[in-house]
Amino acid sequence: MENLEDKLKKVKLIVSDVDGVLTDGKIYLCERCGEMKVFSVKDAIRMEVALKSGMKVLLVTARKGAAVIKRAEELGAGIVFKQDLRQENLSLFAEVKRKFDIEQEEILYVGDDWNDLYFMRQVGVSATPASGSAENRKIADIITEARGGEGVVSELIEKVMRAQGTWEEYFKEYLLKLIP
Amino acid sequence: MENLEDKLKKVKLIVSDVDGVLTDGKIYLCERCGEMKVFSVKDAIRMEVALKSGMKVLLVTARKGAAVIKRAEELGAGIVFKQDLRQENLSLFAEVKRKFDIEQEEILYVGDDWNDLYFMRQVGVSATPASGSAENRKIADIITEARGGEGVVSELIEKVMRAQGTWEEYFKEYLLKLIP
Amino acid sequence: MENLEDKLKKVKLIVSDVDGVLTDGKIYLCERCGEMKVFSVKDAIRMEVALKSGMKVLLVTARKGAAVIKRAEELGAGIVFKQDLRQENLSLFAEVKRKFDIEQEEILYVGDDWNDLYFMRQVGVSATPASGSAENRKIADIITEARGGEGVVSELIEKVMRAQGTWEEYFKEYLLKLIP
Amino acid sequence: MENLEDKLKKVKLIVSDVDGVLTDGKIYLCERCGEMKVFSVKDAIRMEVALKSGMKVLLVTARKGAAVIKRAEELGAGIVFKQDLRQENLSLFAEVKRKFDIEQEEILYVGDDWNDLYFMRQVGVSATPASGSAENRKIADIITEARGGEGVVSELIEKVMRAQGTWEEYFKEYLLKLIP
Repeated sequence: MENLEDKLKKVKLIVSDVDGVLTDGKIYLCERCGEMKVFSVKDAIRMEVALKSGMKVLLVTARKGAAVIKRAEELGAGIVFKQDLRQENLSLFAEVKRKFDIEQEEILYVGDDWNDLYFMRQVGVSATPASGSAENRKIADIITEARGGEGVVSELIEKVMRAQGTWEEYFKEYLLKLIP
Repeated sequence: MENLEDKLKKVKLIVSDVDGVLTDGKIYLCERCGEMKVFSVKDAIRMEVALKSGMKVLLVTARKGAAVIKRAEELGAGIVFKQDLRQENLSLFAEVKRKFDIEQEEILYVGDDWNDLYFMRQVGVSATPASGSAENRKIADIITEARGGEGVVSELIEKVMRAQGTWEEYFKEYLLKLIP
Repeated sequence: MENLEDKLKKVKLIVSDVDGVLTDGKIYLCERCGEMKVFSVKDAIRMEVALKSGMKVLLVTARKGAAVIKRAEELGAGIVFKQDLRQENLSLFAEVKRKFDIEQEEILYVGDDWNDLYFMRQVGVSATPASGSAENRKIADIITEARGGEGVVSELIEKVMRAQGTWEEYFKEYLLKLIP
Repeated sequence: MENLEDKLKKVKLIVSDVDGVLTDGKIYLCERCGEMKVFSVKDAIRMEVALKSGMKVLLVTARKGAAVIKRAEELGAGIVFKQDLRQENLSLFAEVKRKFDIEQEEILYVGDDWNDLYFMRQVGVSATPASGSAENRKIADIITEARGGEGVVSELIEKVMRAQGTWEEYFKEYLLKLIP
């Protein structure tokens, strides 16, 4: 059986659930301002580095909302909504194949709850936050140290890029770019 | 005396207080956006499974507000406001009897503070979050591991459905439905 | 020297700082909704009981804002703004004397930071939350177990009413009132 | 080699990153109210004392937003936006030199993530919060006990002023001013 290190080497795309992974899994409902979500600043920098290195990042969520669309744009990540996939009768993996020409074993999928279990079972590497549900922690290849909303995707990006030997190079490139 | 397992087998309805159980017991007051409440995404999935299995869920709260009404709709749960009961001179249990034809011993009631003590004493099974007040923790049949707003009702749903032997079946049904 | 128990027996008024005591000491600034503050639901019930027993509660704060005025109304507590006192050239204690005819040794003052130190030194009983600043914790008669925004005033109300022997009576009265 | 105590004695200016230092590093995105940031009340008092003693404080951030501009005004601190520096082709240190006539070794810079590493390496004293990234904690002269948004800058102000022997004097002056 292939070990985790070998599986991580094949990863070309990280697909991340939004609520409970990029956020703390809380829904803030407000009388006159709609819904609010809480993201971690930390994820932005590592995602920029990952994208720079050629890795792809795709967010997937059930709920269409202004907050998540804005955050995806800021992060430079793609985003798909489950309801849109359903309407067009597309599976997530078919959409990924069409958009990126990437196979299931080249995907790392991270999700924190039951609606992620099917996808976690179908991909090359599965992950869940420390705060993920019992059932997700049971089958995940990786349980991150970070809880949802505290840099889960950042931690996974570093793991993948270290396995692929690209971490040091792109970290240094990022730092060099910052020198005035 | 009947043990907890036997009492859980009879539960047909979960009645849940809102502030401090479905939320973290905090009131967010905002200058120009009114009041905000914070719910857990996690509760939505388990509540869907519970409702599917035929269990009923009813939210009860003192404060009428847009946030809680929106959340009840999203969860597919019923909601009653204490002020409405008072105006119509209805007790909570009379309302439950009228609406669901369910007896007090078939109710699991969960609440975190003094205004829940009376109801907790009158039902088949009483519960309070880990963050519940001292007086509530003293009389509760169940103190959940979760604190308010972190999946209290989810934990109770799993307990009831496991006691009734329906958990595995409806969990699997939920997963099957998600396969594209 | 008088012990704490004796001093608590004399308390007729609790004066509480807002930021860091009734709230978590965080300022939420929002682009299009102004400022937000976070209060604990828990404080409302105990304050109602305290007021019922004849105790007075007064909030004091530097910042005038819609959120704090709304919360004071909900709690049935009085509120004074430091800038108003300054404009009218009134000291807090003169205002208390005028409004309630209460002496300094009959006041319990609770505050979490430096601007509270002067008042803490001048009253019968001084208190600070577990999250209070080092200087406040050093001189406080009472350091509550609760951190700011997690029921500090509730904890103090129980302490005062237990010392005065009124806790059980008004707790029971509150519960009786709730029976439908 | 110069020890930390000696380096702290030279500090005339504290330059602080905003997200993750003055805030908890979370981005609150709201459907109809834009972006929200969470600051600590505690920082305001210590910053007032620091400014009174003649120390300078400058906030630096990548994101221009109403919340951070409002908070800088409340704190009486200067603020520079990285995009403005870039447009005017100015380095942060050139801007500091121009504005305050202060040298790099007289600066304490505090930041929590990679975009702060360059500045941390160039100044007299570098600091990062307990919640700072691994790379920042590795090179920082000081790791504060406080996490981001919980009084990081307050802790640093006290450290600098104690090293310079001015803490007691300005703390007392602050208290005296509060006596009505």
